[in-house]
Amino acid sequence: MTSEPKSVLGRLYGVGVGPGDPELLTLKAARIIDAADVVAYFAKEGRPSNARAVVAAKLGRQRELTLAYPVTTEIHRHDAAYRGAIGAFYEEAAAQVAAALDAGFDVAVLSEGDPLFYGSYMHLHCRLSSRYETEVVPGVTGMSGGWSGAGLPIAQGDDVLMVLPGTLDEEDLAARFASADAAVVMKLGRNLGKVRRALQAAGKLDGAFYVERATTAGARTIRLADKPDDTAPYFSIVLVPGWGTKP
Amino acid sequence: MTSEPKSVLGRLYGVGVGPGDPELLTLKAARIIDAADVVAYFAKEGRPSNARAVVAAKLGRQRELTLAYPVTTEIHRHDAAYRGAIGAFYEEAAAQVAAALDAGFDVAVLSEGDPLFYGSYMHLHCRLSSRYETEVVPGVTGMSGGWSGAGLPIAQGDDVLMVLPGTLDEEDLAARFASADAAVVMKLGRNLGKVRRALQAAGKLDGAFYVERATTAGARTIRLADKPDDTAPYFSIVLVPGWGTKP
Repeated sequence: MTSEPKSVLGRLYGVGVGPGDPELLTLKAARIIDAADVVAYFAKEGRPSNARAVVAAKLGRQRELTLAYPVTTEIHRHDAAYRGAIGAFYEEAAAQVAAALDAGFDVAVLSEGDPLFYGSYMHLHCRLSSRYETEVVPGVTGMSGGWSGAGLPIAQGDDVLMVLPGTLDEEDLAARFASADAAVVMKLGRNLGKVRRALQAAGKLDGAFYVERATTAGARTIRLADKPDDTAPYFSIVLVPGWGTKP
Repeated sequence: MTSEPKSVLGRLYGVGVGPGDPELLTLKAARIIDAADVVAYFAKEGRPSNARAVVAAKLGRQRELTLAYPVTTEIHRHDAAYRGAIGAFYEEAAAQVAAALDAGFDVAVLSEGDPLFYGSYMHLHCRLSSRYETEVVPGVTGMSGGWSGAGLPIAQGDDVLMVLPGTLDEEDLAARFASADAAVVMKLGRNLGKVRRALQAAGKLDGAFYVERATTAGARTIRLADKPDDTAPYFSIVLVPGWGTKP
């Protein structure tokens, strides 16, 4: 009965900033970032935030809050130690954002692409959205940026589209490629060679494209079969367009 | 050797207008629509265009070109007659857009959501993009609008996400639901009862949500298990969020 009235708490916004081109921000995201008291973003320790870079021209007045991932390269991501460390990090990040909200500040948490589609913001959302007024502003995903920049219609009509992490094992990937009309593979990193072999096994390598840094100045698209190596930076995806029944 | 120089031809833009809320337009889409000579959109015969409605406040100066689908309710969509009629319609629509481009007009073709993700614009793109300078502006998809409005994290980490048309048969749907971590079902229409039974068979009905008219004034989300009927308007989807390993 003496709990603080909701109106004095700040509002939490999960804001998608799109795939990289600052012009692919939505009008709503632009408005909310402009009006926010605090702009928060995840970043790897010692590295700039990619999401922040997209909206850098809009920042200056707002307080900024960097949520810096701990360095975990020594620990495998399926280890209990990793899960413990990363869980503690998200708890601490949520506590930092909560402190700003408790002080009455509106906080915009930036996400590359779309916040609830494989975004780090989700770790704050699940910890805070029941305690604070929360609004999620959807954004253009990296995969939409990829197929649009390359002019590749991805799916139409009755197509089944699969979004797959490159971390799946080769046999599983091949079976899923074979059963889908269209596919997007994310998390390539060291998995590109495996993804290539799985596409070959499924008979879909010839239709696959490799897309790097979509919608930014460094964007490029090539047929995966023509890519001479298996290196893939963080911002890269493989696209297998569907629409086999094209009239 | 006397072919017209490219610079006198208009430019073709496939422009995603997002899921419904006019504020979910991107800055780039707004700029291109503002500058376009012609704004074109598909619509069902005698019905207003949903994509046009999203950007209505920006129109007035531009010439408008409605590409009105022929009425085909008498013909089943898998019939050869349907495919013939719809193919002829897309040819005619492409010819109308080409005539405007040939006259030097820049044409912005509006798409709900994202143009190359199940969008009608794709039928123009595949007919015109090799002949005219073409740029596709990605948009926020209807599914992103749906899970954002409902605050439902859809996929994280190593999740496999499937986008499925409700037109698949019940057994196929059930098998795919069982093999995915997260799913989005589009094209519900008369298929909602079947989708519900397939989710039940896959043990996933309890985690499924029904979302209607996301990001617009009429938006609503309910658990599919709580929805008392199987009616579903055009702008509705089913979401099955993943992220089973939530820390």
